[in-house]
Amino acid sequence: MTGKDVAAMRALIVVAHPDPGSFNAQLASVAVQALESSGYQVDVSDLYALDFDAREGPWHYRARDRTDVFDVQAEQRSAARRATLPPDVQRELDKVMRSDLLILQYPTWWFSVPAILKGWVDRVLAYGTTYTSERRYDRGMLGGKRAMLSVTFGGAESTFAHNGRNGDVELLLWPMQMTLFYVGYQVLTPFTAFGIAGASTDSGKAALTERLERYKTLYRERLLTIDRVPALKFNGWADWDESGRLKPGVPGYSKFMRADP
Amino acid sequence: MTGKDVAAMRALIVVAHPDPGSFNAQLASVAVQALESSGYQVDVSDLYALDFDAREGPWHYRARDRTDVFDVQAEQRSAARRATLPPDVQRELDKVMRSDLLILQYPTWWFSVPAILKGWVDRVLAYGTTYTSERRYDRGMLGGKRAMLSVTFGGAESTFAHNGRNGDVELLLWPMQMTLFYVGYQVLTPFTAFGIAGASTDSGKAALTERLERYKTLYRERLLTIDRVPALKFNGWADWDESGRLKPGVPGYSKFMRADP
Repeated sequence: MTGKDVAAMRALIVVAHPDPGSFNAQLASVAVQALESSGYQVDVSDLYALDFDAREGPWHYRARDRTDVFDVQAEQRSAARRATLPPDVQRELDKVMRSDLLILQYPTWWFSVPAILKGWVDRVLAYGTTYTSERRYDRGMLGGKRAMLSVTFGGAESTFAHNGRNGDVELLLWPMQMTLFYVGYQVLTPFTAFGIAGASTDSGKAALTERLERYKTLYRERLLTIDRVPALKFNGWADWDESGRLKPGVPGYSKFMRADP
Repeated sequence: MTGKDVAAMRALIVVAHPDPGSFNAQLASVAVQALESSGYQVDVSDLYALDFDAREGPWHYRARDRTDVFDVQAEQRSAARRATLPPDVQRELDKVMRSDLLILQYPTWWFSVPAILKGWVDRVLAYGTTYTSERRYDRGMLGGKRAMLSVTFGGAESTFAHNGRNGDVELLLWPMQMTLFYVGYQVLTPFTAFGIAGASTDSGKAALTERLERYKTLYRERLLTIDRVPALKFNGWADWDESGRLKPGVPGYSKFMRADP
């Protein structure tokens, strides 16, 4: 890739942590610096700083498609057609659309994402802008773009496994990675950082500090080589029969998408 | 169970849909009627009607534990100890605490729950009120109570399977069911309704109406026999070694908690 190509690349980092000095915020800063040093132009959407309303609902829509019912997909589709999407959603969509790379930076809360980030997904990835019934999964409207999760976990890494009490990491990331795939992104291998919760003893605090620094170094390296990070493989329309199931003989590409039960 | 026992039972139904006439709202009404006819006293938390703020953050806390950082669990723990939890959270917690049965009623958005419900979990199931580091999973503070998900899906049922393009239903419900188990609930078999999205043709609309009515009948029957609904089985502290993994020879009780990879 030539310098000119790289110079044209843009990234969007969406950060979802209420503390501006959090480890998540620090990882976002690492990403900004590393990507800028590689020639990317970087936008950051700090959802708490933006006071982003997490709740999809009728009050966001000036021109309603129907006022007797509130059908989320119908209102989003109508607003997308008329170019009357809510201003905060349109601003986020503009950033999504001009970015070649999307990074979602968040802590794991309750085996999932913080509500403010779920709300960003619910509202910004609006029907008619990132997907339609005809254009989703490998035909999603954001095809050609890359996305990556960067996720922190409070618990120890050993507890996140097929036989661990917090469950397999792939399981916990599944809803968000499927979401990215659904709108057409090429989903890169996620970056995960474990055991980042507060320590109470002095030796525990020292070990924690060391661990966080090590993760920051690893993350910087990851981002400096982002063009070589492998993408996850998902099944697509060519693999499914009319009932939406894998055709006979087609393998499932994820451990949670299996031909056999 | 005698009439007196039943009369003392209380339920809380948390509803997370922006349309007060939605199918989710209708299912919540079915639940209220069926449970009341069985002698339950029923509270309903309609999160959109309550204008519930989905975002956990520092502005909710009058008396901060630390003002230099915002550590969610530390602030929740401190507020729980001092009885200074945010008023909207305390109101929800009061309802949770006095209920023997919790039902979460929501549509599936992006392989997960609507942001407003995730925010209810993030904020209301506060550290020190429903769990601590010592009291979680099968030792969770809400032990003795039952909880059940009632979830709608837009897509056809055939697409929600181990080999279906939307993935296994258990996979999609995992984060929320683990959350309920984590705070000590006995988690009942979920109620799921598929293919509830809008239809465009007249015959499609007629079939949809018939399907929704059938689901409402099934849901009424489910609730009238709620005391016989089987609970899901989860592994617990006795099953885990010090690293948080299943001890040798201990079976995993979920298809997503497995001794083998």
